[in-house]
Amino acid sequence: MKTETIEYKDGDVTLRGYLAFDEKKSGKRPAVLVMPEALGLGAQAKKRAERLAELGYVALAGDPYGDGLELATVEEAIQLAGKLFADLTKARQRARVAFEKLASFPQTDPSRMAAIGFCMGGTFGLELARDGAPLKGVVTFHSGLQTQRPAAGKINAKILINTGADDPLVPFDQVKAFADEMTKAGADWQVISYGGTKHSFTNPDADSVGMPALGYNKLADERSWRVMKSFFEEIFA
Amino acid sequence: MKTETIEYKDGDVTLRGYLAFDEKKSGKRPAVLVMPEALGLGAQAKKRAERLAELGYVALAGDPYGDGLELATVEEAIQLAGKLFADLTKARQRARVAFEKLASFPQTDPSRMAAIGFCMGGTFGLELARDGAPLKGVVTFHSGLQTQRPAAGKINAKILINTGADDPLVPFDQVKAFADEMTKAGADWQVISYGGTKHSFTNPDADSVGMPALGYNKLADERSWRVMKSFFEEIFA
Repeated sequence: MKTETIEYKDGDVTLRGYLAFDEKKSGKRPAVLVMPEALGLGAQAKKRAERLAELGYVALAGDPYGDGLELATVEEAIQLAGKLFADLTKARQRARVAFEKLASFPQTDPSRMAAIGFCMGGTFGLELARDGAPLKGVVTFHSGLQTQRPAAGKINAKILINTGADDPLVPFDQVKAFADEMTKAGADWQVISYGGTKHSFTNPDADSVGMPALGYNKLADERSWRVMKSFFEEIFA
Repeated sequence: MKTETIEYKDGDVTLRGYLAFDEKKSGKRPAVLVMPEALGLGAQAKKRAERLAELGYVALAGDPYGDGLELATVEEAIQLAGKLFADLTKARQRARVAFEKLASFPQTDPSRMAAIGFCMGGTFGLELARDGAPLKGVVTFHSGLQTQRPAAGKINAKILINTGADDPLVPFDQVKAFADEMTKAGADWQVISYGGTKHSFTNPDADSVGMPALGYNKLADERSWRVMKSFFEEIFA
């Protein structure tokens, strides 16, 4: 597998993503944008990109903040993520440039692209979908589902939401509001709610943060990844 | 594949189930009870039993009413189903005898059993789980999730709910109440909500009934069956 740091731009901001693909494979193939948690582009999202490359996809883990910034604390993450999403046009643009970078690679089949994301990363994917990006699908893992700008027109992407039933950051009412938004927009959507599952359930480091809202859940992690794989087989067929 | 009508008893009532298994396969294997919609044991549930047999399982489609009764109208179904579930002890017993019949076959590995059900059939499966039946899993498709007797003790079965977001018979509040019940009981549960999907979404004949609440949905049908297969691979591993 080939992995490398890739630079791309959002206006004046230089972003440093992480590309992974199977260099022994020839020809264009489906591509997946991976957007990370609010802590920035770290080991978890990079590992997911590698796992997607092992599955045969071109994967780019995107950089949300610039310079590949990784934050040390949840407090910093909340501050920076809040700042980024305060202007939704800018947040969408930050995801869009990553998507376009991924689309530009010679290995990428631009007609078969998807976005996945963890926590804030999934919110990026949903904003791309709401913005009408030419995605086949969006998969989120413990992501916020709210938006300042609900989907208006047709959503191209099929949507698969993986959410923890015990995630206080994504309560049932938020899921319901999202379902209503997607239904109104005529989107193809599915929500999977995992019982006994908290925020950050895919992140093995979640428990070490020491916040009761966060918790790794191996079973939900494995189930949601499996269902994502099956979803990709469907949408990329 | 071998299929045959199997008689079993619930007190004085003679039930006529439909057994399917691969007779070319030797040895004990996981077994799946299939409980049908409120119209009784008809072609749809029998076909599902056959599809499960093709997957390598022993499958018994259970008879909810006796004598393999099939009803012609939804009105009759509502009446008979209502009568059956008015006494929950009796309803649970009706499912339990089918489960025990399936457990008794020489091909069945009684330590690896599951129940699936469509509409009322899934409710049967959930009642077996609430009753502590030794099931590895229960999968429901557009089933009512309410009960007169919420789960008290430990639920053995892992629970997978497939529900249509536009199913007026299983509204969001009912899903929420079920989630709370299962969480309180400490169950391993997942709920998948399919957007743009009505009641009876797995039944190709649903539209011909002429009720706006009902509708076949090929995509949700295929997705829910696929996720069930993956779930079985997990729980029977």
